[in-house]
Amino acid sequence: MKTAYTNGTIFTMDAANEWYKNGIIITEDGRIVYAGPPNDFEQQSVDETIDLKGKWVLPGLVNTHSHILMTILRGTGDDMNLKPWLEQRVWPLEQQFTPEIGTASARLGVLEMLKSGTTTFSDMFNPNGIDSDEVIHAIADSGIRGAFSHTVFSAGSEADQRANLNEAERFAKTYRSFADGRFTTMIAPHSPYTCTPKALEECARLAKENKVMAHIHVAETDGEIEEILTRYGARPIEHIRRSGLFDVPAIMAHGVVLNDEERAFMKERDIRVAHNPVSNLKLGSGVADVAALREADVKVGIATDGVMSNNNFDMFEELRLAALLQKGTYKDATRLPAEEILAMATRIGAEAVGMKHTGCLKSGRCADFITIDPSDKPHLQPAAEACSHLVYAVSGKDVCDVYVEGRQLVKDGQCLTMDEEKIIADANRLRKQLEI
Amino acid sequence: MKTAYTNGTIFTMDAANEWYKNGIIITEDGRIVYAGPPNDFEQQSVDETIDLKGKWVLPGLVNTHSHILMTILRGTGDDMNLKPWLEQRVWPLEQQFTPEIGTASARLGVLEMLKSGTTTFSDMFNPNGIDSDEVIHAIADSGIRGAFSHTVFSAGSEADQRANLNEAERFAKTYRSFADGRFTTMIAPHSPYTCTPKALEECARLAKENKVMAHIHVAETDGEIEEILTRYGARPIEHIRRSGLFDVPAIMAHGVVLNDEERAFMKERDIRVAHNPVSNLKLGSGVADVAALREADVKVGIATDGVMSNNNFDMFEELRLAALLQKGTYKDATRLPAEEILAMATRIGAEAVGMKHTGCLKSGRCADFITIDPSDKPHLQPAAEACSHLVYAVSGKDVCDVYVEGRQLVKDGQCLTMDEEKIIADANRLRKQLEI
Repeated sequence: MKTAYTNGTIFTMDAANEWYKNGIIITEDGRIVYAGPPNDFEQQSVDETIDLKGKWVLPGLVNTHSHILMTILRGTGDDMNLKPWLEQRVWPLEQQFTPEIGTASARLGVLEMLKSGTTTFSDMFNPNGIDSDEVIHAIADSGIRGAFSHTVFSAGSEADQRANLNEAERFAKTYRSFADGRFTTMIAPHSPYTCTPKALEECARLAKENKVMAHIHVAETDGEIEEILTRYGARPIEHIRRSGLFDVPAIMAHGVVLNDEERAFMKERDIRVAHNPVSNLKLGSGVADVAALREADVKVGIATDGVMSNNNFDMFEELRLAALLQKGTYKDATRLPAEEILAMATRIGAEAVGMKHTGCLKSGRCADFITIDPSDKPHLQPAAEACSHLVYAVSGKDVCDVYVEGRQLVKDGQCLTMDEEKIIADANRLRKQLEI
Repeated sequence: MKTAYTNGTIFTMDAANEWYKNGIIITEDGRIVYAGPPNDFEQQSVDETIDLKGKWVLPGLVNTHSHILMTILRGTGDDMNLKPWLEQRVWPLEQQFTPEIGTASARLGVLEMLKSGTTTFSDMFNPNGIDSDEVIHAIADSGIRGAFSHTVFSAGSEADQRANLNEAERFAKTYRSFADGRFTTMIAPHSPYTCTPKALEECARLAKENKVMAHIHVAETDGEIEEILTRYGARPIEHIRRSGLFDVPAIMAHGVVLNDEERAFMKERDIRVAHNPVSNLKLGSGVADVAALREADVKVGIATDGVMSNNNFDMFEELRLAALLQKGTYKDATRLPAEEILAMATRIGAEAVGMKHTGCLKSGRCADFITIDPSDKPHLQPAAEACSHLVYAVSGKDVCDVYVEGRQLVKDGQCLTMDEEKIIADANRLRKQLEI
């Protein structure tokens, strides 16, 4: 089935940054077969034509780092620093999770992501009490795309740690081309401060053997650098390098505290960064030097982190803040201009999580795209400056339609694949079971 | 007419930070006569009862610094530093303004403000080509509350400058209790770098004689400090003090570059600050040290600035960023907790612009309040953590109802007092007349 979407203002987000007024996208079998001006439209034979009526169209947003199982904890533990927040809130609460809570949490998060324009996300599942199989099936049913990992921690007995590693491997194997190929997996040691060197080495081996990416929290705070330096005599990047984890394609969440040498090494090894500007501010970690990373030609994607440190999954808010922070910290308004940050939230983010087949509207890529209808929104007027508005004025709540692999998942702001009322009711009911 | 609003989760934002689940607000003649638990409700005789059905209620937000006449320029001149942005974009475009463009721009801005929960704003009108009378009537018709000023610049011939000052005084006199008392006025010299010392002195005299506040851009960039120091041998605060402008209650926009001595002086003179976090980042000015200002007991309100440097009027986004930035720059997540930042965006902001009669839901204050209905919004779940969500998860697009002086201006997200379709059409038509 061939579908033509006509009369859109199409931001392809390809490397040349092409965009088309009154443009057309034609999709077939989940892929884009044409995106461009309407020149050749008459000659195409399509089965269905959908008039976009001047809506803005861009690739679905790519959230490169999240913890979707924590969604039910939104609003718990604000205004706390990272360490007490993890030790006094996140971990004690996660330990009370049941499979039902985990699944409800994931559903709530995916619902919010889809409605706010995210079509692909890369997520670390924390293992406490969670049945990853149930969770991943719930996510698959929504129609979203993603890269998932069952997080590895060096906690508990030796047997516990072995079981955790085994489960991470089983998970990576089982789901690495799940959901008709929409899902991939990664191996995710939580961080250099929660994993032993041996666990990092094991993770490196698992990622190599299973040919999947590695995903890890690194260089989030000054305290982490000091701690790793004290414990292992090396800064986190060098410490992890020794484990072999950077011998495979890897993405690090945060990268707030890095030096020039580390950035050069990251470029050399193609280590990507998931930049979480809200979370880094909210937890008091600081501001990642994204401009320096981009100058070093490191791939930087945008991410929300979990909603306990955000507290929403609005990628438009996140990408805007990413741009604003570089301007403000460099005291230079020309840093990270609109086109570059939009590319980071789409094409570059997709590359960063190993999904080059999405993130860009051109022939051959997956038909993952979203629309925004500016016509009735005062905050998007005058509407002619669409590219500016997409970065500096739009919110996730402005998203109208969402398509993944050509399938419409959100229509006029309503999710077609999930029971919104039930998901909200379940989240509120189950949250009451958790206690600090 | 006495109206009771029942069954709301009411955040009073009074100094004790009281809030009530299943609370009640009773209004009469535009004032709140009761806000609290439902205890005494049976004994009250009311004419009308409105069931809020669990919605969250808080005082309308107070935007302490904006340039509403620039709204039509949204998205023009992104990614530029302050000086070229003013000289190459803002001023050349504003010089082409017609009265019709000015009024259309103001209407578009007020519409966006109301729909996103702002009930009071303090605005500097730039005078180029604008008929301030027409603009102020258009704003009054919307039902919003505000403090307005006709900006003073030392530009053009001596006669031009005299005319500008005369108009600023006429404006301040004419509208200082306009719109049934909803409007006040201020005297607003643009800044120490665009006004001569003589103009600052004249403004001080006008503010004193007319018993109105002063409003001025100060200490926005490092470059401004250097420039004023070079020209006048004093930093901006001291330079302005010499003019006498700080002998009247004053609010300064920005206050990014201040030292301890200046903050102590500001406390002594009760000089308030309108903090514009997005604009300060977007123009590369930096991050104001709000935590130090609050420690010095200076009143700090939240503000959006004009949408050319923002690019929206979403005060929820603004207050969230204000909180996040202090946590991030201090590397301390406990800075500016949720309750404090909400107070700054409501009660403290109202005090900062000289409007103590609003900004707080308690008996005697104006019935200016807004509601948010979390029930169908995934990003506000679980809904029990309402105060956290109001700061860290809500967007202006979530605002449901808006009341000013007991009159409903927005209902279920639709503005009742303005023609939304016409305003959007006018803005798009008129924008095309302006050229760079």
